Amino acid sequence: MNDTKFILNDVLNIERYANLPGFESASPDMIDAILTEGAKFVEGVLFPLNQVGDEEGCTRHDDGSVTTPTGFKEAYEQYREAGWGTLGAPEEYGGQGMPHILSMAFEEYMASSNMAFAMYPGLTHGATSAILVKGSEEQKQTYCPKMISGEWTGTMNLTEPHCGTDLGLIRTKAEPNADGSFAITGTKIFISSGEHDMAENVIHLVLAKTPDAPDSVKGISLFIVPKFLVNEDGSLGERNQLSCGSIEQKMGIHGNSTCVMNFDGATGYMVGEENKGLAAMFIMMNIARLGVGQQGLGIAEVAYQNAVHYAGDRRQGRALDGAKDKDEKADTLFVHPDVRRMLMDAKAFTEGFRSLCLWGALQADLIQKAQTEEERQNADDILSLLTPVIKGYGTDKGYEVATNAQQVYGGHGYVSEWGMEQYVRDARITMIYEGTNGVQAMDLVGRKLAQNGGRAIQAFFKVVDDECAEARKNDKLADFGERLEKANGELKAATMWFMQNGMANPNHVGAGAHHYMHILGIVALGLQWLNMAEAAHKLLDAGTDNPKFYESKLVTARYFAERFMPDAGALRRKIEAGGDAIMELEPEMFAVA
Amino acid sequence: MNDTKFILNDVLNIERYANLPGFESASPDMIDAILTEGAKFVEGVLFPLNQVGDEEGCTRHDDGSVTTPTGFKEAYEQYREAGWGTLGAPEEYGGQGMPHILSMAFEEYMASSNMAFAMYPGLTHGATSAILVKGSEEQKQTYCPKMISGEWTGTMNLTEPHCGTDLGLIRTKAEPNADGSFAITGTKIFISSGEHDMAENVIHLVLAKTPDAPDSVKGISLFIVPKFLVNEDGSLGERNQLSCGSIEQKMGIHGNSTCVMNFDGATGYMVGEENKGLAAMFIMMNIARLGVGQQGLGIAEVAYQNAVHYAGDRRQGRALDGAKDKDEKADTLFVHPDVRRMLMDAKAFTEGFRSLCLWGALQADLIQKAQTEEERQNADDILSLLTPVIKGYGTDKGYEVATNAQQVYGGHGYVSEWGMEQYVRDARITMIYEGTNGVQAMDLVGRKLAQNGGRAIQAFFKVVDDECAEARKNDKLADFGERLEKANGELKAATMWFMQNGMANPNHVGAGAHHYMHILGIVALGLQWLNMAEAAHKLLDAGTDNPKFYESKLVTARYFAERFMPDAGALRRKIEAGGDAIMELEPEMFAVA
Repeated sequence: MNDTKFILNDVLNIERYANLPGFESASPDMIDAILTEGAKFVEGVLFPLNQVGDEEGCTRHDDGSVTTPTGFKEAYEQYREAGWGTLGAPEEYGGQGMPHILSMAFEEYMASSNMAFAMYPGLTHGATSAILVKGSEEQKQTYCPKMISGEWTGTMNLTEPHCGTDLGLIRTKAEPNADGSFAITGTKIFISSGEHDMAENVIHLVLAKTPDAPDSVKGISLFIVPKFLVNEDGSLGERNQLSCGSIEQKMGIHGNSTCVMNFDGATGYMVGEENKGLAAMFIMMNIARLGVGQQGLGIAEVAYQNAVHYAGDRRQGRALDGAKDKDEKADTLFVHPDVRRMLMDAKAFTEGFRSLCLWGALQADLIQKAQTEEERQNADDILSLLTPVIKGYGTDKGYEVATNAQQVYGGHGYVSEWGMEQYVRDARITMIYEGTNGVQAMDLVGRKLAQNGGRAIQAFFKVVDDECAEARKNDKLADFGERLEKANGELKAATMWFMQNGMANPNHVGAGAHHYMHILGIVALGLQWLNMAEAAHKLLDAGTDNPKFYESKLVTARYFAERFMPDAGALRRKIEAGGDAIMELEPEMFAVA
Repeated sequence: MNDTKFILNDVLNIERYANLPGFESASPDMIDAILTEGAKFVEGVLFPLNQVGDEEGCTRHDDGSVTTPTGFKEAYEQYREAGWGTLGAPEEYGGQGMPHILSMAFEEYMASSNMAFAMYPGLTHGATSAILVKGSEEQKQTYCPKMISGEWTGTMNLTEPHCGTDLGLIRTKAEPNADGSFAITGTKIFISSGEHDMAENVIHLVLAKTPDAPDSVKGISLFIVPKFLVNEDGSLGERNQLSCGSIEQKMGIHGNSTCVMNFDGATGYMVGEENKGLAAMFIMMNIARLGVGQQGLGIAEVAYQNAVHYAGDRRQGRALDGAKDKDEKADTLFVHPDVRRMLMDAKAFTEGFRSLCLWGALQADLIQKAQTEEERQNADDILSLLTPVIKGYGTDKGYEVATNAQQVYGGHGYVSEWGMEQYVRDARITMIYEGTNGVQAMDLVGRKLAQNGGRAIQAFFKVVDDECAEARKNDKLADFGERLEKANGELKAATMWFMQNGMANPNHVGAGAHHYMHILGIVALGLQWLNMAEAAHKLLDAGTDNPKFYESKLVTARYFAERFMPDAGALRRKIEAGGDAIMELEPEMFAVA
């Protein structure tokens, strides 16, 4: 929490936005109060249910109803009553109208304490946003207040058994009814929070095709399909023709009900225009992608905190440079450089990535609220560029950090008792859902780089260049600035290579997409570390009662420069190898062992 | 299996060792026959039990007995009857006396088909080896024939609740009895195959301390502690005072019984000399470490094969350079460069690492059987250097490959139905047991590099240098040779840096140990790829009826050079950053979020 406050107040300095709507109430005191209450809630209510949720999972009954793990229903009631879902939602629909950046900070805590639980309100949040942007006023009035309050939850229904990434292939049908509604028929799979016992209604957002729709992604429409139809007075009406057919057995996030949803002529209401459903769904998807990055952060953070605790507790072996605790039979794990390598790696990632996520969330606020069109556009450029990086790089690294944290425990990390293996299993899904990380990488290099003539990446380069130039004028930051400039140079070279070779053969770009996403992640985290180091120096120079916190920032920034940045050069070399060797083999030449 | 034969016959050319004991019978025809039967056995008998084993796990009953998953007992009977355990064992104790290299090849197939099952005979093999090397003739006669035949299985009992890596801390006691045996008392945890229903006896090898033993690793002795005592005529006698206290719930390998073993004054027989138990256990451990590397390979291979199959089956999206299968609504996953990146990465690793493992196993044969002392010593140097690399680098990469193969499946990889998530969970233990990969890295840089004045690493450099020099004379191999020479240069520079900085502060070496293990892994795999490319060129030049197999080797060698080798330079830079930033923070400065 100290770290969140440091980033919000000292690094991003969000007080300077106090003139923008919502920000006026986000004073350091208010932030402190909200985060303190939030931390208390997740630690006291959600965290104790994390292991229970994993062990029990969700149960589907013969009538299609689903029971969540012991305690989930009561915890959700507390969540709802405390109004946590209202934090960043607009006031006109019952929200508190606080900046996104604050609700994003709270989402990390939710994910750390109980990711499977956090997904229920997380998806509700995304579904609400899509209705708020694309829905009719009547739809907003009917659904949003109850979704924001948490009385109802939301889902997104995209995937079908034969298609996930390629939504052009969906078969779910939407036949027009006489009253303007549609009859939705089809099967959707992997529907998180699809059916459960925590709320009185579930609002499904469903992608489907109208009868004459083009047979591609240009023929997809979006529908609101409530579990219970809603009467004109807002009360619940009859049960809609949809049901949970089964619950998936899966690697982790057992506390969340991952459902096969069957729609059998269910009543649905179109959101936005016909055949423009994908664009509407992408509003939800982009929010969900940032949320998934936040999950990667949350799991990495809690796994790291556990590993730090264990490293201080467990005694095994002696320091290489001589016994540290002579009265004990062995030193703590902290004396071993390879254990520290894993911990420092986790620290450098989580703190840097927290700053990146919050910087991204700030852009989401500025897109809506900044005073000039130029600022709004710049924020939009940066956020659209960073979204696949936050989702893709962030969850790749989050999983790696969780795996390393488990490794610190040795054999005790592999047995269920300590809970570390659950973090790895839970983290694994973040690399897959809301678009696999390969899809993120392709979104980055195939769409985001090229959009508007490369405006977004140029804007990003400018931010980095400007800050590096500034840093080089400051003795204390010059070395870091120089290293970041070098990493940024690798990114620029890779970008140039794509420009020069992508036209001739797009597979050259595809083959390097994942590597590119990682270089950009390294540079984006480097930028955060530069900002954090600068803030830490300032506070240390001014005198502070918590110098160790800021000193640890400087040491970690150095670690980041030494151990993360060298990969940028290696990744660039891999990108410049192009796609020939990757694309050459015929499929039958692959598995031969 | 084609790949194994290619490596044995064409790359390692093991026919040239036909003059050595055991090798005379390892003709290409015999190898083909054994591997064909072996593949048939694992595919038909073990593989069908892999998912069952994961779902059911092992069950401990109130009397301490343990039931293995449905079908395991019968499958083990078939394993025993077919004599698979006798393959590489010495003829005088009922083995077939075949080279290690062949039994190692078969171990990969076992691990691919059912890793949890393979651990029962795998540990038996290690335990037998320790008795063969360090046991008395009477002990060998009493235990080895029945362990080799598979009638009895074996275990290794090292870990206790408070210590794993640091065995100097063990508390299990061995009190001398009047008859020369010992009474063993203590608790051991994480004992794989500790208790089960597949064999009539279990021979535990247990580390314990005699009453006056020094309070360190120099005070550890090794004991044979059978579940049932053995009468003089070889029949089973009374039940020993030991029992399984519980079975661990764990992330994977559910089909193997991971036991807490309680020894309550159990009768044990010392193996080798008092207080020299660790050295004896290390015979077993080194074999086990190579076996674990082989598990990393086996899981990576089967996960990769599945992913290849899925990539050819699943249709999603279109090729970036235009639709490939116009009659279908979408192309297969094979058209997507980022999917191919994951598959090529898996192919480059598994094929290269298979060659490395078999080269290592060949050294194990040469240590015992080569004709000159110099050859035997050279083989010993190379194998002792490579053992931590095969275990540490091999399982780090094996887990990564399994994770990537799961990723190819998208959401279907996360649900249990397809079996991919089991591979990831099973693979995860390989990075932890038989010495965590951090312990492997420290073994490499702390012991293996320095032993005998660096003789082993110098011998390795010489092999690589000689082959690169040879390659540069050959137009077809010159480019690869040059790249390998460069990667080897990074390894040499890192070695030099350790020599120059390790004396002043050993933490500089510890901080780079893991990176060093990975550079060495890259160079060692590069050496294999050079050899494989050379063999492939020869066969293609000579004319072959399977040219695609050899062409795919050349493409994959190129991929390896382009995508694995650049990391060597980045890793070297990380090593040269030293240990300062890693060691600087006080423990309380870590978790601050």
